[in-house]
Amino acid sequence: MDELIKRITAFRDERDWGQFHNPKDLAISLNLEASELLELFQWKNSEEVVEQNKEKLQDELADVLYYVLLMCHDLKIDPTEALLNKLSKNKEKYPVEKAYGSNKKYTELHGGTNE
Amino acid sequence: MDELIKRITAFRDERDWGQFHNPKDLAISLNLEASELLELFQWKNSEEVVEQNKEKLQDELADVLYYVLLMCHDLKIDPTEALLNKLSKNKEKYPVEKAYGSNKKYTELHGGTNE
Amino acid sequence: MDELIKRITAFRDERDWGQFHNPKDLAISLNLEASELLELFQWKNSEEVVEQNKEKLQDELADVLYYVLLMCHDLKIDPTEALLNKLSKNKEKYPVEKAYGSNKKYTELHGGTNE
Amino acid sequence: MDELIKRITAFRDERDWGQFHNPKDLAISLNLEASELLELFQWKNSEEVVEQNKEKLQDELADVLYYVLLMCHDLKIDPTEALLNKLSKNKEKYPVEKAYGSNKKYTELHGGTNE
Repeated sequence: MDELIKRITAFRDERDWGQFHNPKDLAISLNLEASELLELFQWKNSEEVVEQNKEKLQDELADVLYYVLLMCHDLKIDPTEALLNKLSKNKEKYPVEKAYGSNKKYTELHGGTNE
Repeated sequence: MDELIKRITAFRDERDWGQFHNPKDLAISLNLEASELLELFQWKNSEEVVEQNKEKLQDELADVLYYVLLMCHDLKIDPTEALLNKLSKNKEKYPVEKAYGSNKKYTELHGGTNE
Repeated sequence: MDELIKRITAFRDERDWGQFHNPKDLAISLNLEASELLELFQWKNSEEVVEQNKEKLQDELADVLYYVLLMCHDLKIDPTEALLNKLSKNKEKYPVEKAYGSNKKYTELHGGTNE
Repeated sequence: MDELIKRITAFRDERDWGQFHNPKDLAISLNLEASELLELFQWKNSEEVVEQNKEKLQDELADVLYYVLLMCHDLKIDPTEALLNKLSKNKEKYPVEKAYGSNKKYTELHGGTNE
């Protein structure tokens, strides 16, 4: 992960783009890349997309990951630690005995986590 | 990265949630998490948010990363490879001598990469 | 408004696109159009965009409005009534004496309305 | 439409919120509301949502419409004119004889309109 972040920031710094990268604009760009990922699925079902657009899926996921890691870097957040920490919180929010299995239960539980 | 993905899929499988996780719905959820990240910046500037909401920023970035890695896993995409591969493409799209520095040049170049 | 909705549904029906327009996919497309609107502001401030991109702003707002009205039509929701009804709810949520003026107050009040 | 816009701007002005409403932040808020609409469909199919969440659908569509009309007002764009104008453009982009019917054709045509 550290190595990836080094590559990303090197890419940016070679182009002197850091001056434009405040966190709010990075969050906007992350959203735009997430939309481009979703756009691959517009009017289609998952199967069609996975069959026909594997390379684009890979590229769009990479673009989202790029901004996640760039924001983590700029905000001095360790992405691995952040994720493990959030998983711990989610384990408490969704205890296995409550969250196991049914679609209904899952979406109900999920419906209340709007944060 | 592999270790993180193992933790994430273990979390999901303990809850038997894989049955709901088709790529299209994962892409929707990734977008919703990206929006929750952006929402932290609603009506605010970057400085205010970074000062006041560091923990939430960390949690929302973790949620986006969670779905990026989950989609990569399900689609058999290696996230590290995908990112390095995309960086290579972007190096060609944004050669240093053209992309270096000015805001104007940057946004013009960026305006044409809508894919 | 009724006249606009007639024009929109006529446009769709001439192309026989209604068969693909389930509400979930319409909501996805509405989000994609909203992103294209936001993309005009990527790495820029409002002034630059308003000066340089007036026509694109107009087109992207029209695209969002198109999907809002199409969803309203398909779900048998009257958009005027829905908006007036929501304004009434918001008047209770944001009473003038509490919500008046300061940025801080506003964002605090807003922070709690995540629904 | 004019009457609606008057109601919306009156609501805002009573609260003196106009000072925070630059177009970029309005475009962000429009996106956040679009996401809240999409969130109703998270992990669900259209039928479940339409049956169970009619009132929320109405409220979220109203929230999106609120920001569309507010942006139109601030940018001196006539929403009716913008929509009719965009429909004319789309009629040229998607001529009936080419766009009629099949899912495949439709998505292919749509795939090229990423602007």
